[in-house]
Amino acid sequence: MVKTEAQSGAEIAARLQALGNEVIADIELKKNPSMAILTRALNNVYFDEDAGLIKLGDKKQNRYYINLNQAKKFMQTLLVAKQIKWLLEQQKPALSIRQLYYTLKHSIEGSKEETFDSQDESDPLIEDVEVMVDALREELRLIATPKGVLAGPMVVLDQTGDMLDFTKMGSAGGAVPPSVEENTFEIKECSADFVLVIEKFAVWNLLNQQKYWKDANCLIMTGKGQPARAERRLLHRMQKELKIPIYVFTDMDPWGYYIYSVYKQGSINLAFFSEKAGSPKANYLGFSTSDIKQFDIPRSAYIKLKDVDYKRLKEIEAYDWFKSPGWKKEFAAMKQFGYKVEQDSLVAKSIEFTAKEYLPTKIENKQFIA
Amino acid sequence: MVKTEAQSGAEIAARLQALGNEVIADIELKKNPSMAILTRALNNVYFDEDAGLIKLGDKKQNRYYINLNQAKKFMQTLLVAKQIKWLLEQQKPALSIRQLYYTLKHSIEGSKEETFDSQDESDPLIEDVEVMVDALREELRLIATPKGVLAGPMVVLDQTGDMLDFTKMGSAGGAVPPSVEENTFEIKECSADFVLVIEKFAVWNLLNQQKYWKDANCLIMTGKGQPARAERRLLHRMQKELKIPIYVFTDMDPWGYYIYSVYKQGSINLAFFSEKAGSPKANYLGFSTSDIKQFDIPRSAYIKLKDVDYKRLKEIEAYDWFKSPGWKKEFAAMKQFGYKVEQDSLVAKSIEFTAKEYLPTKIENKQFIA
Repeated sequence: MVKTEAQSGAEIAARLQALGNEVIADIELKKNPSMAILTRALNNVYFDEDAGLIKLGDKKQNRYYINLNQAKKFMQTLLVAKQIKWLLEQQKPALSIRQLYYTLKHSIEGSKEETFDSQDESDPLIEDVEVMVDALREELRLIATPKGVLAGPMVVLDQTGDMLDFTKMGSAGGAVPPSVEENTFEIKECSADFVLVIEKFAVWNLLNQQKYWKDANCLIMTGKGQPARAERRLLHRMQKELKIPIYVFTDMDPWGYYIYSVYKQGSINLAFFSEKAGSPKANYLGFSTSDIKQFDIPRSAYIKLKDVDYKRLKEIEAYDWFKSPGWKKEFAAMKQFGYKVEQDSLVAKSIEFTAKEYLPTKIENKQFIA
Repeated sequence: MVKTEAQSGAEIAARLQALGNEVIADIELKKNPSMAILTRALNNVYFDEDAGLIKLGDKKQNRYYINLNQAKKFMQTLLVAKQIKWLLEQQKPALSIRQLYYTLKHSIEGSKEETFDSQDESDPLIEDVEVMVDALREELRLIATPKGVLAGPMVVLDQTGDMLDFTKMGSAGGAVPPSVEENTFEIKECSADFVLVIEKFAVWNLLNQQKYWKDANCLIMTGKGQPARAERRLLHRMQKELKIPIYVFTDMDPWGYYIYSVYKQGSINLAFFSEKAGSPKANYLGFSTSDIKQFDIPRSAYIKLKDVDYKRLKEIEAYDWFKSPGWKKEFAAMKQFGYKVEQDSLVAKSIEFTAKEYLPTKIENKQFIA
């Protein structure tokens, strides 16, 4: 069962407490204390076709206290869990995972041993705790640096108490905050007809200057390339709560396609995050090989595919979530064409072309790759 | 003469016109058309100690039309200048320098030659035009992707007409827009006592959650590491217009020190930008070697200096703007200490320590490196 409703800090703290209680129970029963942890390796990741999401399977590994290879990690896992419980109960501000590491790292009394030698040791344990208590990192008061901005007809009540109107955020747009949960970033109103996710800031910025979001009555968001956690989670909430179409607009190259798939199906590395951050109903709007002829894209916009592009293309072709007929056709067409095209290059047609021609045509005709 | 007041598009377009007129005059006089361009190489960059800024000298190079090595570049320079003039006169939206490249790149009629083969050809010519007409790239309607966010008691009238109150921007803070000129981002009110610039988002975010800017009555801004153009230009305007102290808070390592110097004195690569984006009155607040003892920083926060750190330290020690007694002492102390310390690590003392102890003490006692 995956919770997607906002979970209170107290609920999660109680689950962390239960985790500790189990360890104590093991000790009292004179059993070797252990924790069962979902395996986050590739052999436990699969693509759930019905859900349209990359998911974590149910393989588990036991971590034991009385085990020479696992004793330190066992202790460290409990330290991480304890610290998170403390953050929640004390209602402390949210920390970065580096800051959490610094709060945990210290010499163990009576020894020269440190609790943690480097952040490489604490980061995977945070993920272990996330899956053990089925909570998002942000719900554990741990945040990543967001990158995105957005604009359009949406009003949000922020956890600070500020009411944010994304039609009034100026030329910068509104910044995506690090935590975008129902109880930190509550969507109060939204009259947008769809969400347009744009790979690059420069293209987002052009559309924002042209008030495209006003003309098209939509939200425009960019994650500035590969999105951070917050932009993915926010898009997921938009799909779920706003129930409006999502269109993703990237470069016509393997990296652009992949960015789309991260928004839509999630990623292998963060498979346990995909169910809470994927937006399986997202549509790939473009740029695509069929646009070249349809919009008479000038040759000056073509960029020859290099070895590195072909290599990446081969990699993404192999992903189960890129095996639909539409995508097979797209990959074949790209290889035959031999070029890639960036979304920025549409200005070669005219500076107004993206907003006035390209996007309205593609959206009206529902020309998506599926 | 350096203009620091807002320049209108018409003013700059007129200067671009004058540039073209000179070329025409050369042709009419049957002279080899030429343009004199300030040299932007290291041999024309110097540190102006009185101004406290890295500046471009007055060495110029002529670029000729009738010169086998320069003819194409001459033509390309005029294309860039012409396109910028067109953007200004048509009041087009601002473009990224990649988008500008795409609007310029095309096959030359009657030949197989392209105007530009890659963006590497147009980027330096944009800088040439910037210095020729003494205008900022942003004034030429060309923008870079901003990264920063800020919060605190300041109200700004954005070019969109939106009035932005940076005390009401929620947990994300207000995003820094790509253009922060007097006529695009007009500071209307500010009651802050100082500006605190913070290297890392995680530290900024902690202070924002703790409403440090409210308690200390200041503005807090982060450029998320090495700042983009917009954050530097905005800080420059804050120094000039708000006339309040600026404190820069970074990691205690050569990279942190360097970020401070980019805000303060500018950078070698963008020496022609330093006069318009430097903030020579900025103070280095920390983290510094003397803080270790003063604030009893736990050993767990120390990170051993590696070869790469010593190498970078040696490089920045050689810069003229790091040769003050204060910095000499700091570098010597760091080498003797043998460790670096990150600003994030102050949470090891307590999560409240940065806001409640460290910053107030340093600011009240004016403990800056100078």
